[in-house]
Amino acid sequence: MGGVVVTSVERVDLAVIDGLATCGVATVHEAQGRTGLLASRLRPIYTGARVAGSAVTISAPPGDNWMIHVAIEQLQPGDILVLAPTSPCEDGYFGDLLATSAQARGCRALITDGGVRDVRDLTQMNFPVWAKAVYAQGTVKETLGSVNVPVVCGGAHVRPGDVIVADDDGVCVVPRETAVEVLEKACAREVLEEAKRLRLANGELGLDIYSMRERLKEKGLVYI
Amino acid sequence: MGGVVVTSVERVDLAVIDGLATCGVATVHEAQGRTGLLASRLRPIYTGARVAGSAVTISAPPGDNWMIHVAIEQLQPGDILVLAPTSPCEDGYFGDLLATSAQARGCRALITDGGVRDVRDLTQMNFPVWAKAVYAQGTVKETLGSVNVPVVCGGAHVRPGDVIVADDDGVCVVPRETAVEVLEKACAREVLEEAKRLRLANGELGLDIYSMRERLKEKGLVYI
Amino acid sequence: MGGVVVTSVERVDLAVIDGLATCGVATVHEAQGRTGLLASRLRPIYTGARVAGSAVTISAPPGDNWMIHVAIEQLQPGDILVLAPTSPCEDGYFGDLLATSAQARGCRALITDGGVRDVRDLTQMNFPVWAKAVYAQGTVKETLGSVNVPVVCGGAHVRPGDVIVADDDGVCVVPRETAVEVLEKACAREVLEEAKRLRLANGELGLDIYSMRERLKEKGLVYI
Amino acid sequence: MGGVVVTSVERVDLAVIDGLATCGVATVHEAQGRTGLLASRLRPIYTGARVAGSAVTISAPPGDNWMIHVAIEQLQPGDILVLAPTSPCEDGYFGDLLATSAQARGCRALITDGGVRDVRDLTQMNFPVWAKAVYAQGTVKETLGSVNVPVVCGGAHVRPGDVIVADDDGVCVVPRETAVEVLEKACAREVLEEAKRLRLANGELGLDIYSMRERLKEKGLVYI
Amino acid sequence: MGGVVVTSVERVDLAVIDGLATCGVATVHEAQGRTGLLASRLRPIYTGARVAGSAVTISAPPGDNWMIHVAIEQLQPGDILVLAPTSPCEDGYFGDLLATSAQARGCRALITDGGVRDVRDLTQMNFPVWAKAVYAQGTVKETLGSVNVPVVCGGAHVRPGDVIVADDDGVCVVPRETAVEVLEKACAREVLEEAKRLRLANGELGLDIYSMRERLKEKGLVYI
Amino acid sequence: MGGVVVTSVERVDLAVIDGLATCGVATVHEAQGRTGLLASRLRPIYTGARVAGSAVTISAPPGDNWMIHVAIEQLQPGDILVLAPTSPCEDGYFGDLLATSAQARGCRALITDGGVRDVRDLTQMNFPVWAKAVYAQGTVKETLGSVNVPVVCGGAHVRPGDVIVADDDGVCVVPRETAVEVLEKACAREVLEEAKRLRLANGELGLDIYSMRERLKEKGLVYI
Repeated sequence: MGGVVVTSVERVDLAVIDGLATCGVATVHEAQGRTGLLASRLRPIYTGARVAGSAVTISAPPGDNWMIHVAIEQLQPGDILVLAPTSPCEDGYFGDLLATSAQARGCRALITDGGVRDVRDLTQMNFPVWAKAVYAQGTVKETLGSVNVPVVCGGAHVRPGDVIVADDDGVCVVPRETAVEVLEKACAREVLEEAKRLRLANGELGLDIYSMRERLKEKGLVYI
Repeated sequence: MGGVVVTSVERVDLAVIDGLATCGVATVHEAQGRTGLLASRLRPIYTGARVAGSAVTISAPPGDNWMIHVAIEQLQPGDILVLAPTSPCEDGYFGDLLATSAQARGCRALITDGGVRDVRDLTQMNFPVWAKAVYAQGTVKETLGSVNVPVVCGGAHVRPGDVIVADDDGVCVVPRETAVEVLEKACAREVLEEAKRLRLANGELGLDIYSMRERLKEKGLVYI
Repeated sequence: MGGVVVTSVERVDLAVIDGLATCGVATVHEAQGRTGLLASRLRPIYTGARVAGSAVTISAPPGDNWMIHVAIEQLQPGDILVLAPTSPCEDGYFGDLLATSAQARGCRALITDGGVRDVRDLTQMNFPVWAKAVYAQGTVKETLGSVNVPVVCGGAHVRPGDVIVADDDGVCVVPRETAVEVLEKACAREVLEEAKRLRLANGELGLDIYSMRERLKEKGLVYI
Repeated sequence: MGGVVVTSVERVDLAVIDGLATCGVATVHEAQGRTGLLASRLRPIYTGARVAGSAVTISAPPGDNWMIHVAIEQLQPGDILVLAPTSPCEDGYFGDLLATSAQARGCRALITDGGVRDVRDLTQMNFPVWAKAVYAQGTVKETLGSVNVPVVCGGAHVRPGDVIVADDDGVCVVPRETAVEVLEKACAREVLEEAKRLRLANGELGLDIYSMRERLKEKGLVYI
Repeated sequence: MGGVVVTSVERVDLAVIDGLATCGVATVHEAQGRTGLLASRLRPIYTGARVAGSAVTISAPPGDNWMIHVAIEQLQPGDILVLAPTSPCEDGYFGDLLATSAQARGCRALITDGGVRDVRDLTQMNFPVWAKAVYAQGTVKETLGSVNVPVVCGGAHVRPGDVIVADDDGVCVVPRETAVEVLEKACAREVLEEAKRLRLANGELGLDIYSMRERLKEKGLVYI
Repeated sequence: MGGVVVTSVERVDLAVIDGLATCGVATVHEAQGRTGLLASRLRPIYTGARVAGSAVTISAPPGDNWMIHVAIEQLQPGDILVLAPTSPCEDGYFGDLLATSAQARGCRALITDGGVRDVRDLTQMNFPVWAKAVYAQGTVKETLGSVNVPVVCGGAHVRPGDVIVADDDGVCVVPRETAVEVLEKACAREVLEEAKRLRLANGELGLDIYSMRERLKEKGLVYI
């Protein structure tokens, strides 16, 4: 039933975090073995944002945004709020006032498996949100939740201090212990992809670049 | 089974309606005690529109848009069409021809728990629609429905002449009897919010501005 | 269980295809008797695209994009890839590398009842995709599917060589045998609609233009 | 934001209510002009129950079942609780203890657009529930709602004292003012249906019984 | 827009059809290469039914069940009605009267991507239905559809005369041309499965029976 | 990308597990502070089962059930299989043959956020399954996953050896470290509830038993 705020959270170096942002969600997801994606129902409120940050997690009851105020005090520059309702809810937990407060403390984004409102203002403030719904429904401040405890958000396990990467493709979480390694793999992957892109753009086929023809034949593929 | 058109609808003064549009959905919703929101599945076909108007309601059978033609004759400048299918349906009841006709009579928008089509044309015409789906599926003109009777649209009860407010956050209905009072509360709310926004932007915390710390402690919140 | 690639596909003349693109989804759908629409869950990754092309179909297992590589070899300029997972799946079968390859061969778009990723890159490349989900989830290359066999995609039956039309309203399929006839009807429809649009814009009512009043009365419509 | 309990509710005579129960949902729905159905997502927790009663309505915040306790005091024998969350929620607002209390006061069923739990116990108690979800998620008692105010439940407008009819086909609401008239029509309908059933069972066709052939031909139906 | 009834439908021999019923959906689906399943949203109204029959298909507008009457005349003993709405709809197209009529003509079941009502009566009549929804919503008889044309139902392509197999696992369609071959394969599969079942029941592992260990190791599976 | 099987899993004492089964999902969920529920979309294939067991977890690619064979070897009497697809999938990963094998090794149930098939056989075998879908769709054996690693299943974090409790209300996970404590609290809760049940059955009101009237008044509840 909540009621805990963890105040000491280990965070990954911002240089690593910013590197992951540059790689983007799809590449980071591949670089860590196709893991860590949040559900596709979490969509950005506007296109073009690409951010990364350290997760400050919130476990909140349905329709109660009290804990967001508590969480904002725990924010450090470069953080991202990750809000997981304790049961399915699409109420508008977060709007322009909370965004103003979070942004003032250096928060880069909100990720939520709930709803968001004031999306026009948030867009003008350049404060990106990935949410399950846009819904103006107001919330109360009556019941405790917790801040900086492990949560499941969008079907992914997120611990405080894990790195969140988010862009138009969705949201991905990188465990803080492997962030450096994932960044290295992601960068390496980008170099490889760039080479392939050139060959594909020149009309070479993936069938040949990746030497797939033999294996397809073995599996029994027939051309008619 | 429908078959009724109510021709005399009491409407709210346009100055009040336009004032509510300026406040926007989230503020109006809060100002009337967190009531009146339509379901989040009703989304705008393009971003940036913010409108209000008097509801001209339509109860229509699934896949039958005949009543829209009937409803358009009942439109007055400043009205908004509210179309509720009698059972779940996402067919494209409404497109650019009907929008041309509605716009010619001063209609400001369509709200529907069904589908819409010709969204590119509607966007170019600057005719906003909040709908459950974008779907080109054509409809027939065979079965009667009703115009200007109370309907449930997007899970909200809407009576003809009620004020509809719609923006990027969704759609809200304000009963016409309380529209003036809600406008006053909404405006007062906006003033208060502006003051809070400044303090939050300066780094003050909601925990302090709203004096939440004591009550959180009483509820048992623990910092670790 | 798949394993077949049909290499000879009859295609419709590109002039016909391009004519259908100009008419757009809603008009084409009406012109062929309100048939051929794919489900409304297939949405464009960016607005404003309007394309048509010959379907190169792909039947692919969930989470396995191997067959896309096979299909790309079968592409001719003016084609559109139509990818139907064999069971519901929203994984990101397709991203910027595959788009680069497809675009190099003259492919105009991808239609899929699955997921897509790298949507920012695809948007910059001007390669439109209509998909059920944006989802970065990676896929494997282990199990055969088929290319250029009839598929059901988005609830519509699509055969290789059928014409796909797609725009902001969604996606429509035109059987290749009737493409010329549908184009003629669509063009005729556009002319008629233009005439009606002018009358409606001038304030004439659909009730009068379409002579509906008598039939509404017969059905029992009552004005109160 | 709630906070009101209306203690005087006009109810329909129990003989009428029980007559409507006997007719069942489909017949009653037809008898009142195909109106009044709640959404199909409200399903019974066990099959075979067929009940009717006077609505005691509850408007409750998401995840907060406090108002059910308040509502139970307002119950009279023959009543049915109708619980509408103020925003989408599937938490288990109601279980065996509340059912025991409600049943002790003569309550016949619960209808909810939220969740229910303890369904095994409820089944053994013979206390039927129509709900959106079976979900054990516990709720709090912190925020006021209202009792015996008009609500929208499952997309239908329900006022306190309206008659609720529920069976395996779902749930229907009959406005208390028309309950007698609807019962008469429903009974008449049953008699007619019985006669038709016999003819159909003997192999006569609806095409002939309802004289449809001529009209189908006029509409253009072609046999190949 | 419909309007066609095909009166001559080639059907598969009833012995073959009944054989397929005995094998059941999962086995038949596997026997024909894991194809032919209808979407999982089509659920039986009661458990325990296992049927097969020749498809008599219906393409019907949303909320209009007129064509069912037309289709019933086309039924022969051993047939199954397959009803596909032309756009998503969950109205109750079919109830006990139509079931009485269909059953009188030897019809074995209804498969529909729409809704059904009177499920208590249908259960008592032992007339099984697989449907997307149970919903009492009544329908009209105004717009033509077609009977015995190819349809997409539940995401599967069904032609008149194809064999439908349905049980608690869902619904599968077998093209009439391959029904005999599929039956043979399904029977063979059953024999093989029976042998495996005994070994598995005795505690042998699938890893050994299917010789999976070596391939798992090659793929890189590691035991810790 | 998977590829790991953890062979040593700490399990909770079976007496504790069986005690938790007796308490049932709703009580256990409350006893551990309203945490641990899996999503309501996981439903039992038949009613009346109430089981508990130690989780043997499986992370499996969409449409690939190879890892179930691997997991079955890891089963001990009293275990429950928990299968989490790596992306949303409703294919029928599991049927009667795998159930025979699992049951032979003492497995008590399967919990899956995917699909299941052969539900008639599974019911006759008395092997309960909680699944997202009943769907006969076959799967392949091509890609590695992992066994006995932490997974998110139905939105809940499940580690190997955690206790799973499942009944008609759904599924709950109890961390193995707190299982004894949760059992104690659950038993205490049952005693308390029994006392309350008697009072409620005698017509006492929750308003009085729980002394709610004063606090409701303070919050502003008004009786009209």
